[in-house]
Amino acid sequence: MSTVIYPGSFDPITLGHIDIISRASRMFDKVIVAVLKNSTKKPFFSIDERIELIKESLTDIKNIEIDSFDGLLADYVNKKGATTVVRGLRAMSDFEYEFQMALTNKHLNPEVETIFLTSSSEYMYLSSGMVRQVAELGGDITGFVPEIVKNKILEKLFKG
Amino acid sequence: MSTVIYPGSFDPITLGHIDIISRASRMFDKVIVAVLKNSTKKPFFSIDERIELIKESLTDIKNIEIDSFDGLLADYVNKKGATTVVRGLRAMSDFEYEFQMALTNKHLNPEVETIFLTSSSEYMYLSSGMVRQVAELGGDITGFVPEIVKNKILEKLFKG
Amino acid sequence: MSTVIYPGSFDPITLGHIDIISRASRMFDKVIVAVLKNSTKKPFFSIDERIELIKESLTDIKNIEIDSFDGLLADYVNKKGATTVVRGLRAMSDFEYEFQMALTNKHLNPEVETIFLTSSSEYMYLSSGMVRQVAELGGDITGFVPEIVKNKILEKLFKG
Amino acid sequence: MSTVIYPGSFDPITLGHIDIISRASRMFDKVIVAVLKNSTKKPFFSIDERIELIKESLTDIKNIEIDSFDGLLADYVNKKGATTVVRGLRAMSDFEYEFQMALTNKHLNPEVETIFLTSSSEYMYLSSGMVRQVAELGGDITGFVPEIVKNKILEKLFKG
Amino acid sequence: MSTVIYPGSFDPITLGHIDIISRASRMFDKVIVAVLKNSTKKPFFSIDERIELIKESLTDIKNIEIDSFDGLLADYVNKKGATTVVRGLRAMSDFEYEFQMALTNKHLNPEVETIFLTSSSEYMYLSSGMVRQVAELGGDITGFVPEIVKNKILEKLFKG
Amino acid sequence: MSTVIYPGSFDPITLGHIDIISRASRMFDKVIVAVLKNSTKKPFFSIDERIELIKESLTDIKNIEIDSFDGLLADYVNKKGATTVVRGLRAMSDFEYEFQMALTNKHLNPEVETIFLTSSSEYMYLSSGMVRQVAELGGDITGFVPEIVKNKILEKLFKG
Repeated sequence: MSTVIYPGSFDPITLGHIDIISRASRMFDKVIVAVLKNSTKKPFFSIDERIELIKESLTDIKNIEIDSFDGLLADYVNKKGATTVVRGLRAMSDFEYEFQMALTNKHLNPEVETIFLTSSSEYMYLSSGMVRQVAELGGDITGFVPEIVKNKILEKLFKG
Repeated sequence: MSTVIYPGSFDPITLGHIDIISRASRMFDKVIVAVLKNSTKKPFFSIDERIELIKESLTDIKNIEIDSFDGLLADYVNKKGATTVVRGLRAMSDFEYEFQMALTNKHLNPEVETIFLTSSSEYMYLSSGMVRQVAELGGDITGFVPEIVKNKILEKLFKG
Repeated sequence: MSTVIYPGSFDPITLGHIDIISRASRMFDKVIVAVLKNSTKKPFFSIDERIELIKESLTDIKNIEIDSFDGLLADYVNKKGATTVVRGLRAMSDFEYEFQMALTNKHLNPEVETIFLTSSSEYMYLSSGMVRQVAELGGDITGFVPEIVKNKILEKLFKG
Repeated sequence: MSTVIYPGSFDPITLGHIDIISRASRMFDKVIVAVLKNSTKKPFFSIDERIELIKESLTDIKNIEIDSFDGLLADYVNKKGATTVVRGLRAMSDFEYEFQMALTNKHLNPEVETIFLTSSSEYMYLSSGMVRQVAELGGDITGFVPEIVKNKILEKLFKG
Repeated sequence: MSTVIYPGSFDPITLGHIDIISRASRMFDKVIVAVLKNSTKKPFFSIDERIELIKESLTDIKNIEIDSFDGLLADYVNKKGATTVVRGLRAMSDFEYEFQMALTNKHLNPEVETIFLTSSSEYMYLSSGMVRQVAELGGDITGFVPEIVKNKILEKLFKG
Repeated sequence: MSTVIYPGSFDPITLGHIDIISRASRMFDKVIVAVLKNSTKKPFFSIDERIELIKESLTDIKNIEIDSFDGLLADYVNKKGATTVVRGLRAMSDFEYEFQMALTNKHLNPEVETIFLTSSSEYMYLSSGMVRQVAELGGDITGFVPEIVKNKILEKLFKG
C-alpha cells in the first residue's frame, strides 16, 4: 500500500492545501496530513484547533489520516512506515527552500523521497500567513479558506 | 483624472523611492504617497517623522499628496477613489512578493490594478533596511538618501 | 491624453493578451496595440492576418488603435507621441528579459517608461508559442484563444 | 496498479535520468520511460538507438516499460491508462518551464497530474545537451553517462 | 601578496565553508577568515567558541588567519590592507542577497571587490542554520560539519 | 604568478566586458582574454576582427594577453598553465548557466576554479547580442561599447 506524508503547519488549512491533499489522495492509497508542532513559533491556532479544522474541511476524502508530529520529518516518515513526502509548490519562491528540505531529508534518511505537485493556478499566491494577515486587517477571506475555517478565524480575531 | 497610490513603509524614504515617485508623477495626474502604519513592527522613524522627511524630499514635485494608512491597501485605494497602485521592482527578489500582493489585492477588490515600474539601475540594490544598517555601522549613506534624510538619521542614531 | 503602447508579436493573440489590453484600456485614455514586424523569424500568421485577428478579438474595446511597427520600439513610441509602454508579466521567467528590455529602451530614449501589469493567474502559463505547439499536436486550444483565432489556426494547420 | 510516465528526449540517457527512473521505480508499480519523437529537431541518436541505450542502461530495474510517443503528452498518458507524469527538477532553471508544461497538460486533460522529483545533488548540473557538447569537444564524459552510452557516443562521433 | 577576506557568521563552521576556504587558499597567498560579531542576533556559539572551532577544523591549511570583526565589512577590508572579499554561492537563493551586499560594499568603498566561488554540489544545500536545526531535533549531523564541531554542538545542546 | 582566464565570445566586446577585465587585472598578475572560436554559430565579427577590437579597446591595461581558443575550456586552462577562470555575472538570468558551466568544468578538470565578479550596476543589462540588435535597428549604441567598436559595427552594417 502506498502511503504518503503531507507535512505542514496548516495554520490554518487553505483551499490550496485542500487542492493538494485531494489530488494526492487520488494518486496514492493513503495520505497522512501531518501537522507540525513547532514549539518555537507562536501559532494562531493551537495544534488541536488546526487538526479539528482539517478534519472538518476534509470530510469528503476518505483515504486520509490526520496526525501531528514534532522532531525530524525524516524520523516521522520512518515511524509511519512511509517513504514518500508530498509537498505543493506554489511559485518559484517556494522552490529553493523546498529543494533544500528535500535534499536534507534525503541526507538524513536516504529512503525518504519528496515529490512535488504544482499548485493549481488559482491558489498559486495563497498562503496561510497571507490569509491571517488579510483577516486581521478586516479583509474578506472567502475564496481563500473553507467556510468553517473562515468562521473560526473571525471568531478568534473579533470575538475573543 | 488619473490618480495612483504609491504605498510603502518609507522608513526612511530613499533616492530609489524618489526616482519612482518622480517618474510616476510624469505619467499620472496625481500620485498619493501612502505611508503604511504598521503597528506590529517597531519603526526607526515615527509616522510623523517619515511623512515630514517625504515632504521635505519632494518639494520639487507638485502633483503629489502625502498620506498615511492602515488596514487593507485594497480598502484604502477604494477610499481615495483610485484604482491603481504603483510599485517599484528593484530586482528579482522583489518580484514574487510583489506578484503575490498584486494578486491578493485584485482578489480582495477586483477593481484594484497594480502597475510596476523598474528601478533605475543605480538604485537596484537600495533598500531602506540596508540604509539603516549601513548608517548604524558608521558607514557613509550619501548617495542612498537625500541630504535631509541623512542628517535626520545621524541625529537619531548618534545624538540621542 | 494618456496614450500607451502595448507591443508584441501576437502570433496569435491569446486570452492572456486580451486580459492585459482590456485592463490597460480602463487605466489609460488610449491603448495602441503594436504588432512587431520581425523580419528574421518566420511567423505562423502574416502581419495582416495577425492584425485582422486582433481586430476581430477586440471589438468590445473602444479606446484602442491597432498598428504595426518595425525598428526600435523606443523610436516607435516617440513617433506615436507616447511615452509609456505596457507589458504583461506572466511569471518569473519573463521578468529578467522584460527588465533588460525596459532598461535598454530607457537608455535609448530616457523619455520611455515601461509599466508592467501582472497576468491574471488563469493566464499565467499561456503563451502564443505554446498555443501553436498544442494546436499542431492536435490538442484542443479552447480556453487559450478566442473562438475566431482558434478557427483560423485550425484552418491554417489542417485545411492548407 | 499505479503506473507513471517518465517522458523525455533521452538523447542520450544520462546518470541523472537513471537516478530519477530508479527512484520512481521504487515508489510506483510501473514506470513507463517514454521517448519523445520530435520531428522538428535533428537528434543526435535516432529513436531506435535511444531506446536501445535506455534498455541496456536499465537492465537492473524490472518494473519499467520503454516506449516512444509523438503528439500531445496528455493524449499519450491517456492512451497508456496512466494519470501521472514524473519529471526530474535539476535546478531552478528547469522550474518555470516544467511548471508551464504541468499546467498546460492539466488544462488539456484535467486527469493528468505531474509530480516532480528533485535531482540528486551530484547530477544537478547534468543534461544530455551538455554531455553531447563535452564529448564533441573531446572531453571525458565518464561519470555523466553509463559506460555503454559513452562508447556509443564516441563511436558515433569519431568512428563515423 | 594577494590577501582575501572570507567573512561570515560561522555559527558553526560547516564542511561547505571549509570547502570554500580550502579552495580560496590555493588561489590566493592568504585567506583571512573573518567572524562577524553581530550584536543583534543571539548566536548559538560565542565568538570565542566559533574561532576555536574554525581553528581546530582548519589545521591542515597553512596560509590562513582567523580573526573577528564588527562594523562595516568595507571598513574591515580596508583596515586589513586587503581589497578582495570571497563569498561562496550555494544556490540561487543566495544570489540576490550576495549581489546586493557586493554592490553596497563597492558603493561604500569602490576599492572593495567581491568574488564568488560556487559551492561544490554536495554542499549546495548546507547552511549553519540547517545544521543547528537538525541537531536540535536529534538528527545526525555527520557529513555536515567536522567531527569536532559535531561533538561541540551535541555537548552544548544535550549536556548543558 | 597568478594568471586567470576570461573566456567569452566578445562579439563584440562591450563596456561591461571591459569593466570586468579592468577589475580582474587589478586583482591578478595576468588576465588572459580568451576569444572562443565557435564553429557552429555564425559570428557578426570574425575571430581576427574581434581580437583586433579587444586590443584597441584595452590599450590602457598592461597585464593582459589576448588569445583565442577552441575545444574544451578546461583543456585550454590547463594548456595555459592557469587554474582560474573569471566570469562576470550580469543578473540572475546568467546565474544558472554559469553555475552549470563552472561545475562541469570542475568535473572535467578538478583543478579548474571559476570565480565570479558581479557586473557594475550600469552594465547589468548589457549584452553583445543586445548591442548588435539595437545597432541593426538603427539605435544609438554609444554608452554600450567603446567608440572604436561602435564605428566598426556601423561600418559593417551600413557600408558593407
